[in-house]
Amino acid sequence: MKKGTLFIVSGPSGCGKGTILAEIMKNPGLYFSISATTRKKRSGEEDGVNYHFMTNDTFRELIQNDGILEYAEYCGNYYGTPKKPVEEHLNAGDDVILEIEIIGAIKVLTKCPDAVSIFLLPPSLSELEHRLRRRGTESESVLQERVAQAAKEIKQSNKYDYVVVNDTLSQAIADVKAILRAESCKTRKCQTIIEEVLKK
Amino acid sequence: MKKGTLFIVSGPSGCGKGTILAEIMKNPGLYFSISATTRKKRSGEEDGVNYHFMTNDTFRELIQNDGILEYAEYCGNYYGTPKKPVEEHLNAGDDVILEIEIIGAIKVLTKCPDAVSIFLLPPSLSELEHRLRRRGTESESVLQERVAQAAKEIKQSNKYDYVVVNDTLSQAIADVKAILRAESCKTRKCQTIIEEVLKK
Repeated sequence: MKKGTLFIVSGPSGCGKGTILAEIMKNPGLYFSISATTRKKRSGEEDGVNYHFMTNDTFRELIQNDGILEYAEYCGNYYGTPKKPVEEHLNAGDDVILEIEIIGAIKVLTKCPDAVSIFLLPPSLSELEHRLRRRGTESESVLQERVAQAAKEIKQSNKYDYVVVNDTLSQAIADVKAILRAESCKTRKCQTIIEEVLKK
Repeated sequence: MKKGTLFIVSGPSGCGKGTILAEIMKNPGLYFSISATTRKKRSGEEDGVNYHFMTNDTFRELIQNDGILEYAEYCGNYYGTPKKPVEEHLNAGDDVILEIEIIGAIKVLTKCPDAVSIFLLPPSLSELEHRLRRRGTESESVLQERVAQAAKEIKQSNKYDYVVVNDTLSQAIADVKAILRAESCKTRKCQTIIEEVLKK
């Protein structure tokens, strides 16, 4: 049984990450990692779907027992990636997608050197600004902050294995699919297959 | 302008390399490296299509001037990969495919550490034997030699970056296409793109 690959996906707000990943997740044999949080469940949210909701004590226990791949505190709540479901799916041969911001991504890459990282880029900062403005959900000052934040993040993209520019959505989806497929052909993932070819 | 990638493709006789590469070469922006040789042109062969035919003196001059990526002598003739067309196409942004046996592949990988290597595998040694037998072009003893040679070569496949099993032809072609596409998204190939995203 070939072990799955852990894919870390990051990209600035407005780069189309959600749309691309929703399409990718239609592929079979993929597990989308669900974060754990100690914040209260909001109306409409489901445990194990939007987040794994848990108490502060449970979360701290996970941290102490090395049960969290990475975590951060935000507005007095913990957010993090539980290790167990990720490892279970990898061992079952599924690829795992972890959508995560850069600081968390770097923490995971340190713990899981076999993980493969993908950074999604907008075609340009001005196009990103245009897309965020079209959403119309943010005030002008928040929008400018987001663009400045995106520029900071994009400068970190060279820490990732791959970059995918979301200029044409279908092409960006094809790029990510190609990366997933190519990584499953990496020789270090295929030792068992090589042995089987020689045996039969 | 993004520089192209040099892809080295190897695989034992009968693994379907020719069929797969013929399909891959339909992609635009790919150059298939043509070997140089000092052997006589056979009827039906064309200079610059089947081989770059040249004299012993020209070939030796190329070797002396570091104009050959790798070469070997076989039955008193030189066979090798001229460096210039490969470099010209890479600089023009084309990916270059170099179909070559293992010893040559390892020589090229030493000279071109950025090259990406793909090893094509038959689904099994017995299936390879079956395919070679179906061709009906070899005597039983030659056939057995080829299978033994294939086993030796497959044991070297872990020196390659990727392995692709040609079980179902369409899947093997899709694997190789995915590898080519994914490699063009490697961050180290996309530095200029990242800079452009930030500028605009």
